[in-house]
Amino acid sequence: MDSMTFVLFGATGDLAKRKIYPALYNLYVDGKIPASFSVIGLGRRELSDAQFQSNVDQSLTDFSRRLSDDTAQREQFVNAFRYCSLNNAHPEDYKKLLDLVTAREEELNIPQNRLFYLSVAPEFFDVIALNINESGLGDTTGWKRLIIEKPFGHDLESARELNTNLSKAFEEDEIFRIDHYLGKPMVQNLEALKFANPLMQGIWNNKHIANVQITASETVGVEDRAGYYDTSGAIRDMIQNHMLQMLMMTAMSEPKQVTAKDIRASKRKVIEALRPLDEKSIQTDIIRGQYSAGEMKGTQVPGYTSEPGIGPDSHNDTFVAARLWIDDEQWKGVPFYIRTGKRMHEKSTRIVVQFKDAANNPYAANQEEIVPNLLVINIGPDEGVSLQLNSKNPFNDGKIGTINMNFSASQKDVPEAYERLIFDALRGDSTFFAHWNEVELSWQWVQPVLEAFEANRVTLHHYPAGSNGPEASDNLVAENGFTWWLDEKKASAANVAIHV
Amino acid sequence: MDSMTFVLFGATGDLAKRKIYPALYNLYVDGKIPASFSVIGLGRRELSDAQFQSNVDQSLTDFSRRLSDDTAQREQFVNAFRYCSLNNAHPEDYKKLLDLVTAREEELNIPQNRLFYLSVAPEFFDVIALNINESGLGDTTGWKRLIIEKPFGHDLESARELNTNLSKAFEEDEIFRIDHYLGKPMVQNLEALKFANPLMQGIWNNKHIANVQITASETVGVEDRAGYYDTSGAIRDMIQNHMLQMLMMTAMSEPKQVTAKDIRASKRKVIEALRPLDEKSIQTDIIRGQYSAGEMKGTQVPGYTSEPGIGPDSHNDTFVAARLWIDDEQWKGVPFYIRTGKRMHEKSTRIVVQFKDAANNPYAANQEEIVPNLLVINIGPDEGVSLQLNSKNPFNDGKIGTINMNFSASQKDVPEAYERLIFDALRGDSTFFAHWNEVELSWQWVQPVLEAFEANRVTLHHYPAGSNGPEASDNLVAENGFTWWLDEKKASAANVAIHV
Repeated sequence: MDSMTFVLFGATGDLAKRKIYPALYNLYVDGKIPASFSVIGLGRRELSDAQFQSNVDQSLTDFSRRLSDDTAQREQFVNAFRYCSLNNAHPEDYKKLLDLVTAREEELNIPQNRLFYLSVAPEFFDVIALNINESGLGDTTGWKRLIIEKPFGHDLESARELNTNLSKAFEEDEIFRIDHYLGKPMVQNLEALKFANPLMQGIWNNKHIANVQITASETVGVEDRAGYYDTSGAIRDMIQNHMLQMLMMTAMSEPKQVTAKDIRASKRKVIEALRPLDEKSIQTDIIRGQYSAGEMKGTQVPGYTSEPGIGPDSHNDTFVAARLWIDDEQWKGVPFYIRTGKRMHEKSTRIVVQFKDAANNPYAANQEEIVPNLLVINIGPDEGVSLQLNSKNPFNDGKIGTINMNFSASQKDVPEAYERLIFDALRGDSTFFAHWNEVELSWQWVQPVLEAFEANRVTLHHYPAGSNGPEASDNLVAENGFTWWLDEKKASAANVAIHV
Repeated sequence: MDSMTFVLFGATGDLAKRKIYPALYNLYVDGKIPASFSVIGLGRRELSDAQFQSNVDQSLTDFSRRLSDDTAQREQFVNAFRYCSLNNAHPEDYKKLLDLVTAREEELNIPQNRLFYLSVAPEFFDVIALNINESGLGDTTGWKRLIIEKPFGHDLESARELNTNLSKAFEEDEIFRIDHYLGKPMVQNLEALKFANPLMQGIWNNKHIANVQITASETVGVEDRAGYYDTSGAIRDMIQNHMLQMLMMTAMSEPKQVTAKDIRASKRKVIEALRPLDEKSIQTDIIRGQYSAGEMKGTQVPGYTSEPGIGPDSHNDTFVAARLWIDDEQWKGVPFYIRTGKRMHEKSTRIVVQFKDAANNPYAANQEEIVPNLLVINIGPDEGVSLQLNSKNPFNDGKIGTINMNFSASQKDVPEAYERLIFDALRGDSTFFAHWNEVELSWQWVQPVLEAFEANRVTLHHYPAGSNGPEASDNLVAENGFTWWLDEKKASAANVAIHV
């Protein structure tokens, strides 16, 4: 791996503390950062290097998944960190930054490979990129890269504007847009499950699959994020990015080779084939919901409009369900349902693939219930794959019942999404980042929904906190003869060893 | 269920004690025997009813899977038992038996439904059937059934002769030939796995399956059965019956309905389509083996010819492997390998289905190892289904490794093979019994092998006790580019709940 400088904007922020420093440290322990590695942290406040290093060290204590640590190792790690106070909008601060970066490059004999990580509020993305460009920080004799956090725009227009501005300073293949769902092990594994298993390759199409259900439900409410969330809603917070990314990962067809480039082309084909929404289909295929007061695990919780910072008239969506169609040969006639919400019955991110029933059921005359075959990919909080089959029940005179064949990864010490994504960015692998055309086409698909929600042209269904969302969401699936699977109980997961 | 009389020949024998009485008792506890139920035990020795009942009770203590019992319930159960001493060849004894059966029928108000269970040495099958017929025991106003233990003949000719004799007293649909492998839960489950799962139905053919491997390996040697085994060998003891039955259950195509009749027709189609052996293919497709001295779990054990009762020149087969071809559209080009042996490395009965590799492997350029997809059906001693897939390993930078998705039935309190089979016979369900045409066609397939072994025209390969059989068996599979799966270690099984 190339020696490099890691320039972190937002170094005193929450994400840096909770995710980025622990991720870098864990990579360091695993020998997955370059031998010569300079980290420059940037923030508005004044901090000495020693104070900054002490803060970084504290974040490891608080948030690293590695609890018992070697002090000498930690000391060596934080030694690579320097701090520079910076106002994002002040060009002269970037000059100061350039001096520091260059001085450390010379001191540590690091080529001019610079990775800029924008862990700041989205309104600063443009100005930082502009200043990186104008200050000369981006004129390197080595490579430069930009890691950028979500949200990437607030709608189609603002996303395009942001991209135009970023592209003045960075080429598309230098930009690594974080979608941390793409860092989750089971989302990454979708690729291997499908393409490394001939069995799956053969059945991953509309001949065998009846429908696909992607759920990301949270039990929390808006928490202390009213300012952000009330202007974003589930549609921007989850659907445009994470849900559509998971859909692309699920539906993408086999690439010639498993490379970043070929995977990107496969994902793009999916989002391009997504049937656009019109005024009519927005009414029939999109369900907007907002939680009202209800009970979560025995405790009464307030409705959305009674949450701190939310106005009593807010029409914001805390729940969205949608039915999508991918208009290509592979998926013709297969509805994809996506659904996300806050204050739902359980916290679960999962993909359920329901297989078609057989044309002929030889058990029809036996009065036995044959339930559909399901492949369940549990993405979080537990990770695993489960296949539901029908089987004889030895305890019940051989009557048919369902069994679940499970694989679940041991939770212990699995690298976090941020570790995987930062590692990929360090080595320049952009497979699991959101590319501009995916982002743009996702916004394009979502845009009419944003407008319809804005104009309040879509019914706002209320659902009690602690439920599985509004009834309209169940009806959306029932219209095609289906049901949301596993809403009441999740597939049980067993501890199974990984054979490697 | 009809009230009936259960007439047991061989009532003082080992099988009755170990299997039949515990099975009947467990059925009784579960309410699965008729309300009015008369059991008549037969044996050569003289026993009072009380002695017999006490012996039956003792067998429950020794062998029933239900340990904690209700004494009153046991007393009531053994009360249904009567004993009659009988010489199988003495017609007058059958008159005595008829009197007792009739007296009990009248006493208990049981219609003339009579089930005759032949748990005796095979040389008595003919004479007992003859005497049942001639004594008038078989002239019932209700139904009559015959349960008969293996072996059903010693070769094609003797099997045909036996069947001719039995059919003088019983119709084919009155004969229940026990093959206790057909009573094993996972063998019975093959039917449900294939026909109750659209996913499986779609892939159960030569488009998706590369080969099928059926193994039944034992760790024991000949034990104290030299007299029987040295004249039977693995070919008669295992191949002609259990292995070919498992092959039929695995390969049978979907019946119109899951009924005894349709399943029988499906099985028959498989055995009819089995490519016959000739002098040449016996040399290439059949491996004969005999264990020599070796080590089992650290202990030296003698070779077959040093076992008590075995002559030093015995050419008997303690191991047979075979490659079979089913000449129909479903299985064209798919080799079925079967293999059974004594003194093998581990005790395991399993079916491994290896799926075909994809025409295009998108990981080819990534230097990643993609291993074949396997479906493993563990029949014993553990029961379960396991699917081996390729998956990313989260501990290894997302490199591909294999995972096993497992279902395993809890061993606790699952009805034994004999319980299931006797229950089926009591209610007249012949699905999981061997039918004459299956038996005949199995003998027909095996006959040229018997003759070749007899004439010593097939190499006898020696394999050390504790191994996986002779190298020739590995070569048999390697010739087609395959390998025996899971020889060293079995698929790990997890405890997974059954969802019913």
